Amino acid sequence: VDPASVRARFAALVRDLQGEWCAALERLDGEGTFVRDAWAREGGGGGVTRVLEDGALLEKAGVNVSDVEGPVPAELAPALPGKADRFTATGISLVLHPRSPMIPTTHANFRFLTHGDTAWFGGGADLTPWYLFDDDAAAFHRALRAACERHDPGFYPRMKAACDAYFFLPHRREGRGVGGIFFDHFGGDDTARALAFVEDVARAFLPAWIAIAERRRREPFGARERAWQEQRRSRYVEFNLLHDRGTAFGLRSGGRVESIFMSMPPRVRFSYDRGTAPESREARLLDVLRAPREWA
Amino acid sequence: VDPASVRARFAALVRDLQGEWCAALERLDGEGTFVRDAWAREGGGGGVTRVLEDGALLEKAGVNVSDVEGPVPAELAPALPGKADRFTATGISLVLHPRSPMIPTTHANFRFLTHGDTAWFGGGADLTPWYLFDDDAAAFHRALRAACERHDPGFYPRMKAACDAYFFLPHRREGRGVGGIFFDHFGGDDTARALAFVEDVARAFLPAWIAIAERRRREPFGARERAWQEQRRSRYVEFNLLHDRGTAFGLRSGGRVESIFMSMPPRVRFSYDRGTAPESREARLLDVLRAPREWA
Repeated sequence: VDPASVRARFAALVRDLQGEWCAALERLDGEGTFVRDAWAREGGGGGVTRVLEDGALLEKAGVNVSDVEGPVPAELAPALPGKADRFTATGISLVLHPRSPMIPTTHANFRFLTHGDTAWFGGGADLTPWYLFDDDAAAFHRALRAACERHDPGFYPRMKAACDAYFFLPHRREGRGVGGIFFDHFGGDDTARALAFVEDVARAFLPAWIAIAERRRREPFGARERAWQEQRRSRYVEFNLLHDRGTAFGLRSGGRVESIFMSMPPRVRFSYDRGTAPESREARLLDVLRAPREWA
Repeated sequence: VDPASVRARFAALVRDLQGEWCAALERLDGEGTFVRDAWAREGGGGGVTRVLEDGALLEKAGVNVSDVEGPVPAELAPALPGKADRFTATGISLVLHPRSPMIPTTHANFRFLTHGDTAWFGGGADLTPWYLFDDDAAAFHRALRAACERHDPGFYPRMKAACDAYFFLPHRREGRGVGGIFFDHFGGDDTARALAFVEDVARAFLPAWIAIAERRRREPFGARERAWQEQRRSRYVEFNLLHDRGTAFGLRSGGRVESIFMSMPPRVRFSYDRGTAPESREARLLDVLRAPREWA
């Protein structure tokens, strides 16, 4: 299949998904609304960033779509498979930072890249709880596994392991969260078939998270839990700025800065060397982040 | 001069400075006290981290000394001048995050490195205001210039320019603050003479900042100014995690994570695409951060 035709179909999909996701999130929130910023990229293409801040349930939510193209920036060339002068990148990314520490933060990203004749998908979805409800992690993973298994029984185990390996802070020896799925350089010779898989996973992801948010939105919390959430969000910042390839790629390829940093948590504390009380819920979360589990 | 003897003298100096700085800052604060964590580094050496949190004037202050040595980590070797199997690094670093947005954040770092027979100093001091008082920036720069000029009239202009170049966020096209001085690979064949310079600058720095803090501590501010400070602190985080060589060196050389992240601002907001009102004090700060000035 011609990469340009897959790109066009995927670009239409991500535009649809952006509208559907924002509408579903506004319904869930009940108060907040997404603002909309359309932007053009110097060098080619552009995107639409939608952000909701200070909602009732969502403290900050961002859904960004972009479809960019242009000459390959010199410092990016070594990172791209294939040899060519031009690249295209089409994708959607979502990050949800709920106000309640009892509702997990979540992130999803799906993208299609072309570099000359080489074309591939990348992406995934993952969950970052601040207080761990095992049922929530299991339900999230089961939903992703079910979407994967409609395409290939080998996908979920491989992409689940890749997610644990990717969202890992080596200097903390901790996972960012309880994982999900992650894939890159995906699609091989059949990017049209890969597109069907990506669409399936993308459509399975948000309902799974919304079910968790509905289940936990009335869970009580106080200042202690909120402080823990804000402190733990600093790990999210560390990961995104020190390790995330998407952030680095975006900044180096001349991406729109405010759209890239849309993923950052709204309010964060960097306190010195906070420990956890033995046997506490906080300590249990850390134990799990240090030893990834099979959830599905 | 034998590098080992310079290292021993500098190690004694940074221990003294740590005690003097913490005592002066506790006097200034009037309420907060520094905790003290001594730590050992796997692979050789160690340090003492002192942190004050939630003081009256200082929201978070950290003063760290370290004196480490060991085999050169494989991924650091290309960054070190000279060829040898072992390195030593001795230094002090300080970061002060005042509660009031009217008092500038400041940072200083002085370090001595050896790699086989090659030895050099690095460091500097810089100021990051959230609301700009020209007098404060000028006084800070004049104090550093005076210390520099006791050694070489060429030092201040060169090191001032190096500071503006170093503390720069390319994706924002903004300086981190109003600068100060920055030097690296400094000392040439006479590290003993360089040590005298470093000591002079290190002793000039803190009194200059304390005078500013005393002058601004009763300056009124409200929720708007505090929100701006917390939002601007996100740029400090961006710089430290995306660009700061000391942070990268520390993490890659197996440094103590909590001591490295001691520099991070205590409370931070990452809001989407906040602008500034035309002709406002916030807008004026950005103008200055985008076009470095001669202050001294």
